[in-house]
Amino acid sequence: MRNVTVIGLGLIGGSMALDLHKSRFAKHFIGVDQNAAHGEEALRLRLVDEVKNLEEGVRAAEVVILAIPVNAARKIITQILDWLPDGSTLIDVGSTKRGICAVAKDHPKRAQYVACHPIAGTEFSGPAAAHYGLFAGKVNIICDQELSNKLSLGVAHELFDVLDMQLAYMDSDEHDRHIAYVSHLSHITSFTLGLTVLDIERNEKNIFNMAGSGFASTVRLAKSSADMWTPIFEQNAENLTEALDAYIEKLQVFREAIVSKDSNKTHELIKRGNDIRRILDGIELKNKEKNGKHN
Amino acid sequence: MRNVTVIGLGLIGGSMALDLHKSRFAKHFIGVDQNAAHGEEALRLRLVDEVKNLEEGVRAAEVVILAIPVNAARKIITQILDWLPDGSTLIDVGSTKRGICAVAKDHPKRAQYVACHPIAGTEFSGPAAAHYGLFAGKVNIICDQELSNKLSLGVAHELFDVLDMQLAYMDSDEHDRHIAYVSHLSHITSFTLGLTVLDIERNEKNIFNMAGSGFASTVRLAKSSADMWTPIFEQNAENLTEALDAYIEKLQVFREAIVSKDSNKTHELIKRGNDIRRILDGIELKNKEKNGKHN
Repeated sequence: MRNVTVIGLGLIGGSMALDLHKSRFAKHFIGVDQNAAHGEEALRLRLVDEVKNLEEGVRAAEVVILAIPVNAARKIITQILDWLPDGSTLIDVGSTKRGICAVAKDHPKRAQYVACHPIAGTEFSGPAAAHYGLFAGKVNIICDQELSNKLSLGVAHELFDVLDMQLAYMDSDEHDRHIAYVSHLSHITSFTLGLTVLDIERNEKNIFNMAGSGFASTVRLAKSSADMWTPIFEQNAENLTEALDAYIEKLQVFREAIVSKDSNKTHELIKRGNDIRRILDGIELKNKEKNGKHN
Repeated sequence: MRNVTVIGLGLIGGSMALDLHKSRFAKHFIGVDQNAAHGEEALRLRLVDEVKNLEEGVRAAEVVILAIPVNAARKIITQILDWLPDGSTLIDVGSTKRGICAVAKDHPKRAQYVACHPIAGTEFSGPAAAHYGLFAGKVNIICDQELSNKLSLGVAHELFDVLDMQLAYMDSDEHDRHIAYVSHLSHITSFTLGLTVLDIERNEKNIFNMAGSGFASTVRLAKSSADMWTPIFEQNAENLTEALDAYIEKLQVFREAIVSKDSNKTHELIKRGNDIRRILDGIELKNKEKNGKHN
Protein backbone atom coordinates (compact mmCIF):
# COMPACT_ATOMS: atom_id res chain seq x y z
CA MET A 1 0.00 0.00 0.00
CA ARG A 2 1.11 3.46 -0.88
CA ASN A 3 1.75 6.92 0.51
CA VAL A 4 -0.54 9.38 -1.26
CA THR A 5 0.14 13.11 -1.16
CA VAL A 6 -2.73 15.45 -1.92
CA ILE A 7 -1.66 18.95 -2.91
CA GLY A 8 -4.61 21.28 -2.42
CA LEU A 9 -7.02 20.23 0.31
CA GLY A 10 -10.20 21.63 -1.22
CA LEU A 11 -13.41 20.15 -2.59
CA ILE A 12 -11.70 17.97 -5.19
CA GLY A 13 -8.52 16.93 -3.39
CA GLY A 14 -10.36 16.42 -0.11
CA SER A 15 -13.16 14.37 -1.67
CA MET A 16 -10.63 12.15 -3.45
CA ALA A 17 -8.79 11.52 -0.18
CA LEU A 18 -12.08 10.59 1.51
CA ASP A 19 -13.03 8.01 -1.11
CA LEU A 20 -9.51 6.60 -1.29
CA HIS A 21 -9.52 6.08 2.48
CA LYS A 22 -12.26 3.53 2.08
CA SER A 23 -10.16 1.40 -0.28
CA ARG A 24 -6.87 -0.45 -0.17
CA PHE A 25 -5.39 2.06 -2.61
CA ALA A 26 -3.19 3.73 -0.01
CA LYS A 27 -2.10 3.32 3.58
CA HIS A 28 -1.11 6.88 4.43
CA PHE A 29 -2.30 10.29 3.30
CA ILE A 30 -0.14 13.41 3.34
CA GLY A 31 -1.71 16.82 2.81
CA VAL A 32 -0.02 19.88 1.32
CA ASP A 33 -1.71 23.28 1.28
CA GLN A 34 -0.21 26.76 1.20
CA ASN A 35 -3.10 27.84 3.42
CA ALA A 36 -2.16 26.58 6.91
CA ALA A 37 -5.76 26.86 8.11
CA HIS A 38 -6.84 24.48 5.33
CA GLY A 39 -4.15 22.04 6.44
CA GLU A 40 -5.42 22.10 10.01
CA GLU A 41 -9.03 21.77 8.91
CA ALA A 42 -8.13 18.81 6.68
CA LEU A 43 -6.43 17.10 9.63
CA ARG A 44 -9.41 17.74 11.86
CA LEU A 45 -11.80 16.40 9.19
CA ARG A 46 -9.45 13.39 8.79
CA LEU A 47 -9.05 14.03 5.07
CA VAL A 48 -5.31 13.37 5.58
CA ASP A 49 -3.10 11.82 8.25
CA GLU A 50 -0.42 14.50 8.30
CA VAL A 51 0.50 17.79 6.70
CA LYS A 52 3.88 18.45 5.13
CA ASN A 53 5.42 21.15 2.97
CA LEU A 54 5.47 20.71 -0.79
CA GLU A 55 8.94 19.23 -1.17
CA GLU A 56 8.58 16.76 1.72
CA GLY A 57 5.10 15.81 0.57
CA VAL A 58 6.21 15.07 -2.99
CA ARG A 59 9.42 13.25 -1.99
CA ALA A 60 7.49 10.95 0.38
CA ALA A 61 4.80 9.91 -2.10
CA GLU A 62 4.17 6.98 -4.40
CA VAL A 63 1.19 8.93 -5.75
CA VAL A 64 0.83 12.71 -5.86
CA ILE A 65 -2.57 14.25 -6.59
CA LEU A 66 -2.33 17.87 -7.70
CA ALA A 67 -5.65 19.63 -7.02
CA ILE A 68 -5.01 23.36 -6.90
CA PRO A 69 -6.13 26.25 -9.16
CA VAL A 70 -4.91 25.71 -12.72
CA ASN A 71 -2.55 28.69 -12.85
CA ALA A 72 -0.78 27.57 -9.67
CA ALA A 73 -0.63 23.97 -10.91
CA ARG A 74 0.98 25.10 -14.15
CA LYS A 75 3.55 27.10 -12.21
CA ILE A 76 4.69 24.32 -9.89
CA ILE A 77 4.39 21.16 -11.98
CA THR A 78 8.03 21.35 -13.11
CA GLN A 79 9.19 21.65 -9.51
CA ILE A 80 6.94 18.74 -8.47
CA LEU A 81 8.28 16.52 -11.25
CA ASP A 82 11.86 17.44 -10.23
CA TRP A 83 11.14 16.16 -6.71
CA LEU A 84 8.97 13.20 -7.73
CA PRO A 85 10.70 9.89 -6.80
CA ASP A 86 11.43 7.45 -9.63
CA GLY A 87 8.53 5.05 -10.04
CA SER A 88 6.03 7.42 -8.41
CA THR A 89 3.04 8.90 -10.23
CA LEU A 90 1.76 12.47 -10.51
CA ILE A 91 -1.91 13.00 -11.33
CA ASP A 92 -3.31 16.48 -11.81
CA VAL A 93 -7.05 17.11 -11.83
CA GLY A 94 -7.41 20.67 -13.17
CA SER A 95 -10.19 21.87 -15.47
CA THR A 96 -7.84 23.03 -18.23
CA LYS A 97 -5.23 20.72 -19.69
CA ARG A 98 -3.45 22.29 -22.64
CA GLY A 99 -1.30 24.73 -20.64
CA ILE A 100 -0.11 22.32 -17.98
CA CYS A 101 0.60 19.60 -20.55
CA ALA A 102 2.66 22.07 -22.58
CA VAL A 103 4.75 22.97 -19.52
CA ALA A 104 5.32 19.30 -18.62
CA LYS A 105 5.91 18.11 -22.16
CA ASP A 106 9.71 18.09 -22.19
CA HIS A 107 10.33 17.21 -18.57
CA PRO A 108 12.49 14.06 -18.18
CA LYS A 109 9.83 12.60 -15.88
CA ARG A 110 6.85 13.44 -18.15
CA ALA A 111 6.00 9.74 -18.42
CA GLN A 112 5.31 9.58 -14.66
CA TYR A 113 2.62 12.26 -15.05
CA VAL A 114 -1.00 11.54 -15.98
CA ALA A 115 -3.06 14.61 -16.99
CA CYS A 116 -6.65 14.20 -15.81
CA HIS A 117 -9.91 16.05 -15.53
CA PRO A 118 -12.55 14.37 -13.41
CA ILE A 119 -15.83 16.02 -14.46
CA ALA A 120 -17.26 16.45 -11.00
CA GLY A 121 -17.67 19.24 -8.52
CA THR A 122 -20.11 21.48 -6.79
CA GLU A 123 -20.38 25.23 -6.36
CA PHE A 124 -18.77 24.90 -2.90
CA SER A 125 -15.07 24.95 -2.06
CA GLY A 126 -12.51 24.36 0.70
CA PRO A 127 -11.82 21.29 2.90
CA ALA A 128 -15.27 21.43 4.53
CA ALA A 129 -16.89 20.98 1.09
CA ALA A 130 -15.19 17.58 0.62
CA HIS A 131 -17.59 14.64 0.72
CA TYR A 132 -17.83 10.96 -0.09
CA GLY A 133 -19.07 9.82 -3.49
CA LEU A 134 -18.50 13.09 -5.34
CA PHE A 135 -17.00 11.25 -8.32
CA ALA A 136 -19.09 8.09 -8.45
CA GLY A 137 -20.61 7.36 -11.84
CA LYS A 138 -19.01 10.40 -13.44
CA VAL A 139 -16.39 10.67 -16.15
CA ASN A 140 -12.67 11.28 -15.80
CA ILE A 141 -10.87 12.45 -18.92
CA ILE A 142 -7.25 11.41 -19.38
CA CYS A 143 -5.37 13.67 -21.77
CA ASP A 144 -2.35 12.87 -23.95
CA GLN A 145 -2.19 9.39 -22.45
CA GLU A 146 0.45 8.34 -24.99
CA LEU A 147 2.92 10.53 -23.07
CA SER A 148 2.39 8.62 -19.79
CA ASN A 149 4.06 5.32 -19.02
CA LYS A 150 2.19 2.10 -18.37
CA LEU A 151 2.94 2.02 -14.67
CA SER A 152 1.56 5.51 -14.04
CA LEU A 153 -1.45 4.95 -16.30
CA GLY A 154 -2.12 1.77 -14.33
CA VAL A 155 -2.01 3.69 -11.05
CA ALA A 156 -4.40 6.29 -12.49
CA HIS A 157 -6.77 3.57 -13.70
CA GLU A 158 -6.75 1.96 -10.28
CA LEU A 159 -7.37 5.31 -8.57
CA PHE A 160 -10.30 6.28 -10.79
CA ASP A 161 -11.70 2.79 -10.46
CA VAL A 162 -11.77 3.23 -6.68
CA LEU A 163 -13.60 6.54 -7.24
CA ASP A 164 -16.05 4.62 -9.44
CA MET A 165 -15.42 6.83 -12.46
CA GLN A 166 -15.68 6.04 -16.15
CA LEU A 167 -12.67 6.93 -18.29
CA ALA A 168 -12.49 8.87 -21.54
CA TYR A 169 -9.41 9.79 -23.54
CA MET A 170 -8.59 12.80 -25.68
CA ASP A 171 -5.71 15.09 -26.43
CA SER A 172 -5.30 18.15 -24.24
CA ASP A 173 -6.11 20.63 -27.06
CA GLU A 174 -9.34 18.85 -27.83
CA HIS A 175 -10.20 18.69 -24.15
CA ASP A 176 -9.88 22.44 -23.68
CA ARG A 177 -11.84 23.21 -26.85
CA HIS A 178 -14.77 21.01 -25.82
CA ILE A 179 -14.81 21.85 -22.14
CA ALA A 180 -15.06 25.54 -23.01
CA TYR A 181 -18.58 24.83 -24.27
CA VAL A 182 -19.95 22.35 -21.75
CA SER A 183 -18.42 23.75 -18.59
CA HIS A 184 -16.62 27.07 -18.81
CA LEU A 185 -19.31 28.78 -20.91
CA SER A 186 -22.10 27.72 -18.55
CA HIS A 187 -20.18 29.19 -15.64
CA ILE A 188 -19.93 32.52 -17.47
CA THR A 189 -23.63 32.51 -18.32
CA SER A 190 -24.46 31.85 -14.65
CA PHE A 191 -22.13 34.49 -13.26
CA THR A 192 -23.53 36.99 -15.77
CA LEU A 193 -27.13 36.11 -14.95
CA GLY A 194 -26.35 36.64 -11.28
CA LEU A 195 -24.70 39.99 -11.99
CA THR A 196 -27.60 41.15 -14.16
CA VAL A 197 -30.30 40.33 -11.65
CA LEU A 198 -28.34 41.73 -8.71
CA ASP A 199 -27.65 44.91 -10.59
CA ILE A 200 -31.17 45.62 -11.72
CA GLU A 201 -33.22 44.41 -8.83
CA ARG A 202 -32.09 46.69 -6.05
CA ASN A 203 -35.22 45.80 -4.20
CA GLU A 204 -34.14 42.40 -2.96
CA LYS A 205 -37.43 41.54 -1.37
CA ASN A 206 -38.89 41.32 -4.84
CA ILE A 207 -36.18 39.02 -6.14
CA PHE A 208 -36.60 36.90 -3.08
CA ASN A 209 -40.32 36.58 -3.69
CA MET A 210 -40.23 36.11 -7.42
CA ALA A 211 -37.23 33.88 -8.02
CA GLY A 212 -38.22 30.24 -8.19
CA SER A 213 -36.49 26.93 -8.54
CA GLY A 214 -35.91 27.42 -12.29
CA PHE A 215 -33.91 30.58 -11.69
CA ALA A 216 -32.05 28.89 -8.82
CA SER A 217 -31.02 26.04 -11.12
CA THR A 218 -29.85 28.35 -13.92
CA VAL A 219 -27.81 30.60 -11.65
CA ARG A 220 -26.46 27.92 -9.28
CA LEU A 221 -22.94 27.95 -10.74
CA ALA A 222 -22.69 31.67 -9.98
CA LYS A 223 -21.83 30.63 -6.44
CA SER A 224 -18.57 29.07 -7.69
CA SER A 225 -15.19 30.13 -6.34
CA ALA A 226 -13.50 33.16 -7.93
CA ASP A 227 -10.05 31.87 -6.94
CA MET A 228 -10.66 28.63 -8.83
CA TRP A 229 -12.48 29.99 -11.88
CA THR A 230 -10.48 33.13 -12.69
CA PRO A 231 -7.39 31.10 -13.69
CA ILE A 232 -9.51 28.54 -15.58
CA PHE A 233 -11.00 31.31 -17.73
CA GLU A 234 -7.54 32.79 -18.24
CA GLN A 235 -5.93 29.47 -19.21
CA ASN A 236 -8.69 28.71 -21.66
CA ALA A 237 -9.26 32.27 -22.87
CA GLU A 238 -9.06 31.55 -26.61
CA ASN A 239 -11.50 28.65 -26.66
CA LEU A 240 -13.80 30.30 -24.19
CA THR A 241 -13.91 33.53 -26.22
CA GLU A 242 -14.91 31.51 -29.26
CA ALA A 243 -17.66 29.79 -27.25
CA LEU A 244 -18.82 33.13 -25.85
CA ASP A 245 -18.97 34.65 -29.33
CA ALA A 246 -21.08 31.75 -30.57
CA TYR A 247 -23.34 32.17 -27.55
CA ILE A 248 -23.69 35.94 -27.94
CA GLU A 249 -24.48 35.52 -31.63
CA LYS A 250 -27.31 33.11 -30.81
CA LEU A 251 -28.52 35.38 -28.05
CA GLN A 252 -28.79 38.20 -30.58
CA VAL A 253 -30.84 35.98 -32.89
CA PHE A 254 -33.14 35.20 -29.97
CA ARG A 255 -33.35 38.87 -29.01
CA GLU A 256 -34.23 39.83 -32.58
CA ALA A 257 -37.03 37.23 -32.70
CA ILE A 258 -38.44 38.62 -29.45
CA VAL A 259 -38.13 42.30 -30.37
CA SER A 260 -39.84 41.72 -33.71
CA LYS A 261 -42.42 39.42 -32.07
CA ASP A 262 -41.58 36.77 -34.65
CA SER A 263 -43.38 33.90 -32.90
CA ASN A 264 -42.48 31.32 -35.53
CA LYS A 265 -38.80 32.08 -35.15
CA THR A 266 -38.98 32.08 -31.33
CA HIS A 267 -40.87 28.80 -31.36
CA GLU A 268 -38.32 27.25 -33.71
CA LEU A 269 -35.38 28.40 -31.55
CA ILE A 270 -36.97 26.94 -28.43
CA LYS A 271 -37.78 23.69 -30.20
CA ARG A 272 -34.17 23.37 -31.34
CA GLY A 273 -32.96 24.18 -27.83
CA ASN A 274 -35.27 21.46 -26.45
CA ASP A 275 -33.08 18.95 -28.23
CA ILE A 276 -30.61 19.34 -25.35
CA ARG A 277 -32.87 16.77 -23.65
CA ARG A 278 -30.93 14.01 -25.36
CA ILE A 279 -27.74 15.18 -23.68
CA LEU A 280 -29.34 15.81 -20.30
CA ASP A 281 -31.10 12.45 -20.29
CA GLY A 282 -27.67 10.90 -20.78
CA ILE A 283 -26.28 12.77 -17.76
CA GLU A 284 -29.29 11.81 -15.64
CA LEU A 285 -28.99 8.23 -16.78
CA LYS A 286 -25.40 8.14 -15.58
CA ASN A 287 -26.43 9.54 -12.21
CA LYS A 288 -29.28 7.04 -11.91
CA GLU A 289 -26.97 4.17 -12.70
CA LYS A 290 -24.65 5.44 -10.00
CA ASN A 291 -27.46 5.74 -7.46
CA GLY A 292 -28.82 2.34 -8.39
CA LYS A 293 -25.39 0.89 -7.77
CA HIS A 294 -24.91 2.50 -4.38
CA ASN A 295 -28.36 2.32 -2.84
CA MET B 1 -68.45 22.88 -1.51
CA ARG B 2 -67.92 24.15 -4.98
CA ASN B 3 -67.68 23.16 -8.60
CA VAL B 4 -64.21 24.02 -9.88
CA THR B 5 -63.49 24.23 -13.59
CA VAL B 6 -59.89 23.96 -14.72
CA ILE B 7 -59.24 25.34 -18.19
CA GLY B 8 -55.99 23.85 -19.47
CA LEU B 9 -55.16 20.42 -18.09
CA GLY B 10 -51.38 20.73 -18.12
CA LEU B 11 -48.67 20.81 -15.47
CA ILE B 12 -50.09 23.83 -13.61
CA GLY B 13 -53.83 23.28 -13.96
CA GLY B 14 -53.50 19.54 -13.37
CA SER B 15 -51.27 19.94 -10.31
CA MET B 16 -53.69 22.49 -8.81
CA ALA B 17 -56.60 20.09 -9.31
CA LEU B 18 -54.63 17.30 -7.61
CA ASP B 19 -53.86 19.35 -4.51
CA LEU B 20 -57.38 20.78 -4.30
CA HIS B 21 -58.83 17.25 -4.38
CA LYS B 22 -57.23 16.56 -1.03
CA SER B 23 -59.04 19.48 0.61
CA ARG B 24 -62.62 20.54 1.22
CA PHE B 25 -62.19 23.40 -1.25
CA ALA B 26 -64.35 21.79 -3.93
CA LYS B 27 -66.64 18.85 -4.44
CA HIS B 28 -66.50 18.47 -8.21
CA PHE B 29 -63.84 19.15 -10.82
CA ILE B 30 -64.63 19.95 -14.45
CA GLY B 31 -61.86 19.95 -17.03
CA VAL B 32 -61.72 22.00 -20.22
CA ASP B 33 -59.00 21.51 -22.83
CA GLN B 34 -59.02 22.19 -26.55
CA ASN B 35 -56.86 19.11 -26.94
CA ALA B 36 -59.26 16.16 -26.59
CA ALA B 37 -56.43 13.76 -25.82
CA HIS B 38 -55.42 15.91 -22.84
CA GLY B 39 -59.03 15.81 -21.61
CA GLU B 40 -59.07 12.01 -21.79
CA GLU B 41 -55.68 11.73 -20.11
CA ALA B 42 -56.79 14.06 -17.32
CA LEU B 43 -59.88 11.90 -16.72
CA ARG B 44 -57.77 8.75 -16.68
CA LEU B 45 -55.31 10.34 -14.24
CA ARG B 46 -58.31 11.52 -12.15
CA LEU B 47 -57.21 15.13 -12.34
CA VAL B 48 -60.88 16.01 -13.05
CA ASP B 49 -64.24 14.29 -12.71
CA GLU B 50 -65.64 15.26 -16.10
CA VAL B 51 -64.71 17.15 -19.23
CA LYS B 52 -66.91 19.85 -20.74
CA ASN B 53 -66.57 22.47 -23.44
CA LEU B 54 -65.51 25.99 -22.48
CA GLU B 55 -68.95 27.56 -22.18
CA GLU B 56 -70.49 24.70 -20.19
CA GLY B 57 -67.42 24.48 -17.99
CA VAL B 58 -67.47 28.19 -17.14
CA ARG B 59 -71.26 28.38 -16.65
CA ALA B 60 -71.20 25.43 -14.22
CA ALA B 61 -68.40 26.75 -11.98
CA GLU B 62 -68.15 28.62 -8.73
CA VAL B 63 -64.40 28.81 -9.37
CA VAL B 64 -62.68 28.87 -12.77
CA ILE B 65 -58.92 28.34 -12.97
CA LEU B 66 -57.45 29.54 -16.26
CA ALA B 67 -54.15 27.74 -16.89
CA ILE B 68 -53.41 27.94 -20.62
CA PRO B 69 -50.64 29.69 -22.59
CA VAL B 70 -50.72 33.44 -21.97
CA ASN B 71 -51.65 34.47 -25.51
CA ALA B 72 -54.66 32.13 -25.51
CA ALA B 73 -55.66 33.27 -22.02
CA ARG B 74 -55.60 36.88 -23.11
CA LYS B 75 -57.75 36.05 -26.12
CA ILE B 76 -60.53 34.26 -24.24
CA ILE B 77 -60.71 36.04 -20.90
CA THR B 78 -63.45 38.41 -22.09
CA GLN B 79 -65.52 35.46 -23.27
CA ILE B 80 -64.98 33.62 -19.99
CA LEU B 81 -66.02 36.67 -17.95
CA ASP B 82 -69.14 37.03 -20.12
CA TRP B 83 -70.14 33.46 -19.24
CA LEU B 84 -68.99 33.57 -15.60
CA PRO B 85 -71.99 33.25 -13.22
CA ASP B 86 -72.56 36.11 -10.78
CA GLY B 87 -70.79 35.40 -7.53
CA SER B 88 -68.28 33.03 -9.17
CA THR B 89 -64.53 33.66 -9.28
CA LEU B 90 -62.05 33.53 -12.15
CA ILE B 91 -58.38 32.97 -11.32
CA ASP B 92 -55.74 32.99 -14.03
CA VAL B 93 -52.25 31.66 -13.39
CA GLY B 94 -50.22 32.86 -16.38
CA SER B 95 -46.59 34.01 -16.23
CA THR B 96 -47.32 37.47 -17.70
CA LYS B 97 -49.94 39.71 -16.18
CA ARG B 98 -49.94 43.14 -17.78
CA GLY B 99 -51.59 42.12 -21.06
CA ILE B 100 -54.39 40.02 -19.60
CA CYS B 101 -55.14 42.61 -16.92
CA ALA B 102 -55.37 45.30 -19.60
CA VAL B 103 -57.88 43.22 -21.58
CA ALA B 104 -60.00 42.52 -18.49
CA LYS B 105 -59.77 46.01 -17.04
CA ASP B 106 -63.07 47.42 -18.26
CA HIS B 107 -65.15 44.25 -18.20
CA PRO B 108 -68.27 44.60 -16.02
CA LYS B 109 -67.26 41.47 -14.13
CA ARG B 110 -63.62 42.53 -13.58
CA ALA B 111 -64.12 42.39 -9.82
CA GLN B 112 -64.81 38.63 -10.01
CA TYR B 113 -61.36 38.08 -11.58
CA VAL B 114 -58.16 37.61 -9.56
CA ALA B 115 -54.93 37.89 -11.59
CA CYS B 116 -52.33 35.47 -10.21
CA HIS B 117 -48.91 34.06 -10.90
CA PRO B 118 -47.91 31.09 -8.79
CA ILE B 119 -44.10 30.93 -9.08
CA ALA B 120 -43.86 27.20 -9.52
CA GLY B 121 -43.31 24.80 -12.35
CA THR B 122 -40.95 22.33 -13.87
CA GLU B 123 -39.51 21.91 -17.34
CA PHE B 124 -42.16 19.25 -18.10
CA SER B 125 -45.65 19.81 -19.48
CA GLY B 126 -49.00 18.15 -20.17
CA PRO B 127 -51.44 16.28 -17.88
CA ALA B 128 -48.92 13.53 -17.10
CA ALA B 129 -46.53 16.13 -15.64
CA ALA B 130 -49.10 17.11 -12.97
CA HIS B 131 -48.13 16.12 -9.45
CA TYR B 132 -48.97 16.72 -5.82
CA GLY B 133 -47.18 19.42 -3.85
CA LEU B 134 -45.86 21.41 -6.83
CA PHE B 135 -46.83 24.69 -5.16
CA ALA B 136 -46.11 23.99 -1.49
CA GLY B 137 -43.93 26.59 0.19
CA LYS B 138 -43.69 28.71 -2.95
CA VAL B 139 -44.99 32.20 -3.67
CA ASN B 140 -48.13 33.23 -5.52
CA ILE B 141 -48.26 36.79 -6.73
CA ILE B 142 -51.65 38.51 -6.89
CA CYS B 143 -51.67 41.48 -9.26
CA ASP B 144 -53.86 44.57 -9.18
CA GLN B 145 -55.76 43.18 -6.21
CA GLU B 146 -57.61 46.48 -5.72
CA LEU B 147 -59.60 45.64 -8.86
CA SER B 148 -60.90 42.35 -7.41
CA ASN B 149 -63.82 42.17 -4.98
CA LYS B 150 -63.56 40.82 -1.46
CA LEU B 151 -65.48 37.64 -2.19
CA SER B 152 -63.21 36.61 -5.06
CA LEU B 153 -60.03 37.62 -3.22
CA GLY B 154 -61.25 35.49 -0.32
CA VAL B 155 -61.75 32.51 -2.64
CA ALA B 156 -58.25 33.01 -4.06
CA HIS B 157 -56.74 33.24 -0.58
CA GLU B 158 -58.50 30.03 0.41
CA LEU B 159 -57.31 28.27 -2.76
CA PHE B 160 -53.65 29.30 -2.37
CA ASP B 161 -53.81 28.43 1.30
CA VAL B 162 -54.84 24.88 0.35
CA LEU B 163 -51.87 24.81 -2.04
CA ASP B 164 -49.69 25.95 0.89
CA MET B 165 -48.45 29.04 -0.96
CA GLN B 166 -47.29 32.36 0.43
CA LEU B 167 -48.89 35.46 -1.08
CA ALA B 168 -47.27 38.59 -2.46
CA TYR B 169 -48.96 41.59 -4.05
CA MET B 170 -47.87 43.94 -6.79
CA ASP B 171 -49.31 45.73 -9.78
CA SER B 172 -49.29 43.92 -13.09
CA ASP B 173 -46.77 46.28 -14.72
CA GLU B 174 -44.32 45.81 -11.87
CA HIS B 175 -44.85 42.04 -11.99
CA ASP B 176 -43.95 41.82 -15.66
CA ARG B 177 -40.90 44.06 -15.27
CA HIS B 178 -39.48 42.00 -12.40
CA ILE B 179 -40.37 38.57 -13.73
CA ALA B 180 -38.52 39.37 -16.97
CA TYR B 181 -35.29 39.27 -14.95
CA VAL B 182 -35.83 36.39 -12.55
CA SER B 183 -37.70 34.00 -14.83
CA HIS B 184 -38.00 34.92 -18.50
CA LEU B 185 -34.34 35.93 -18.89
CA SER B 186 -33.07 32.72 -17.32
CA HIS B 187 -35.18 30.71 -19.77
CA ILE B 188 -33.59 32.57 -22.69
CA THR B 189 -30.08 32.04 -21.33
CA SER B 190 -30.80 28.31 -20.98
CA PHE B 191 -32.34 27.89 -24.43
CA THR B 192 -29.39 29.78 -25.92
CA LEU B 193 -26.83 27.71 -24.03
CA GLY B 194 -28.54 24.58 -25.32
CA LEU B 195 -28.54 25.89 -28.88
CA THR B 196 -24.88 26.89 -28.70
CA VAL B 197 -23.64 23.57 -27.40
CA LEU B 198 -25.81 21.55 -29.78
CA ASP B 199 -24.65 23.61 -32.70
CA ILE B 200 -20.93 23.43 -32.04
CA GLU B 201 -20.53 19.96 -30.67
CA ARG B 202 -21.61 17.86 -33.61
CA ASN B 203 -19.81 14.99 -32.03
CA GLU B 204 -22.37 14.16 -29.39
CA LYS B 205 -20.35 11.50 -27.71
CA ASN B 206 -17.99 14.19 -26.50
CA ILE B 207 -20.77 16.32 -25.06
CA PHE B 208 -22.19 13.28 -23.41
CA ASN B 209 -18.88 12.48 -21.78
CA MET B 210 -17.87 15.96 -20.80
CA ALA B 211 -21.10 17.57 -19.64
CA GLY B 212 -21.50 17.31 -15.89
CA SER B 213 -24.11 18.20 -13.31
CA GLY B 214 -23.20 21.90 -13.41
CA PHE B 215 -23.99 22.11 -17.11
CA ALA B 216 -27.17 20.09 -16.56
CA SER B 217 -28.33 22.54 -13.91
CA THR B 218 -27.61 25.60 -16.04
CA VAL B 219 -29.33 24.26 -19.14
CA ARG B 220 -32.25 22.50 -17.44
CA LEU B 221 -34.83 25.12 -18.41
CA ALA B 222 -33.95 24.57 -22.08
CA LYS B 223 -36.26 21.57 -21.91
CA SER B 224 -39.24 23.87 -21.35
CA SER B 225 -42.26 23.86 -23.65
CA ALA B 226 -42.12 26.01 -26.79
CA ASP B 227 -45.92 26.30 -26.86
CA MET B 228 -45.95 27.78 -23.39
CA TRP B 229 -42.86 30.00 -23.59
CA THR B 230 -43.19 31.53 -27.07
CA PRO B 231 -46.30 33.54 -26.04
CA ILE B 232 -44.75 34.49 -22.68
CA PHE B 233 -41.74 36.02 -24.44
CA GLU B 234 -44.06 37.77 -26.89
CA GLN B 235 -46.33 39.19 -24.19
CA ASN B 236 -43.38 40.47 -22.21
CA ALA B 237 -41.21 41.47 -25.17
CA GLU B 238 -40.40 45.01 -24.02
CA ASN B 239 -39.32 44.13 -20.49
CA LEU B 240 -37.52 41.02 -21.65
CA THR B 241 -35.60 42.94 -24.32
CA GLU B 242 -34.45 45.36 -21.66
CA ALA B 243 -33.33 42.47 -19.45
CA LEU B 244 -31.58 40.82 -22.39
CA ASP B 245 -29.76 44.04 -23.25
CA ALA B 246 -28.54 44.39 -19.67
CA TYR B 247 -27.41 40.74 -19.75
CA ILE B 248 -25.62 41.05 -23.10
CA GLU B 249 -23.88 44.21 -21.91
CA LYS B 250 -22.53 42.39 -18.84
CA LEU B 251 -21.57 39.42 -20.98
CA GLN B 252 -19.48 41.74 -23.15
CA VAL B 253 -17.73 43.10 -20.06
CA PHE B 254 -16.96 39.53 -18.99
CA ARG B 255 -15.78 38.64 -22.49
CA GLU B 256 -13.49 41.66 -22.57
CA ALA B 257 -11.95 40.73 -19.20
CA ILE B 258 -11.28 37.21 -20.51
CA VAL B 259 -9.93 38.25 -23.91
CA SER B 260 -7.53 40.73 -22.32
CA LYS B 261 -6.66 38.22 -19.57
CA ASP B 262 -7.49 40.88 -16.99
CA SER B 263 -7.54 38.56 -13.98
CA ASN B 264 -8.38 41.28 -11.49
CA LYS B 265 -11.45 42.27 -13.46
CA THR B 266 -12.55 38.63 -13.96
CA HIS B 267 -12.07 37.93 -10.27
CA GLU B 268 -14.07 41.00 -9.32
CA LEU B 269 -16.94 40.08 -11.67
CA ILE B 270 -17.11 36.56 -10.26
CA LYS B 271 -16.99 37.86 -6.70
CA ARG B 272 -19.87 40.21 -7.41
CA GLY B 273 -21.81 37.39 -9.09
CA ASN B 274 -21.21 35.23 -5.99
CA ASP B 275 -23.45 37.63 -4.11
CA ILE B 276 -26.42 35.83 -5.71
CA ARG B 277 -25.93 33.38 -2.83
CA ARG B 278 -28.04 35.61 -0.61
CA ILE B 279 -30.96 35.23 -3.02
CA LEU B 280 -30.45 31.51 -3.56
CA ASP B 281 -30.14 30.81 0.14
CA GLY B 282 -33.50 32.49 0.53
CA ILE B 283 -35.05 30.21 -2.11
CA GLU B 284 -33.49 27.13 -0.52
CA LEU B 285 -34.66 28.24 2.90
CA LYS B 286 -38.21 28.43 1.62
CA ASN B 287 -37.92 24.92 0.16
CA LYS B 288 -36.46 23.58 3.38
CA GLU B 289 -39.25 25.11 5.42
CA LYS B 290 -41.70 23.47 3.08
CA ASN B 291 -40.02 20.07 3.36
CA GLY B 292 -39.75 20.38 7.12
CA LYS B 293 -43.45 21.03 7.24
CA HIS B 294 -44.40 18.06 5.12
CA ASN B 295 -42.00 15.38 6.20
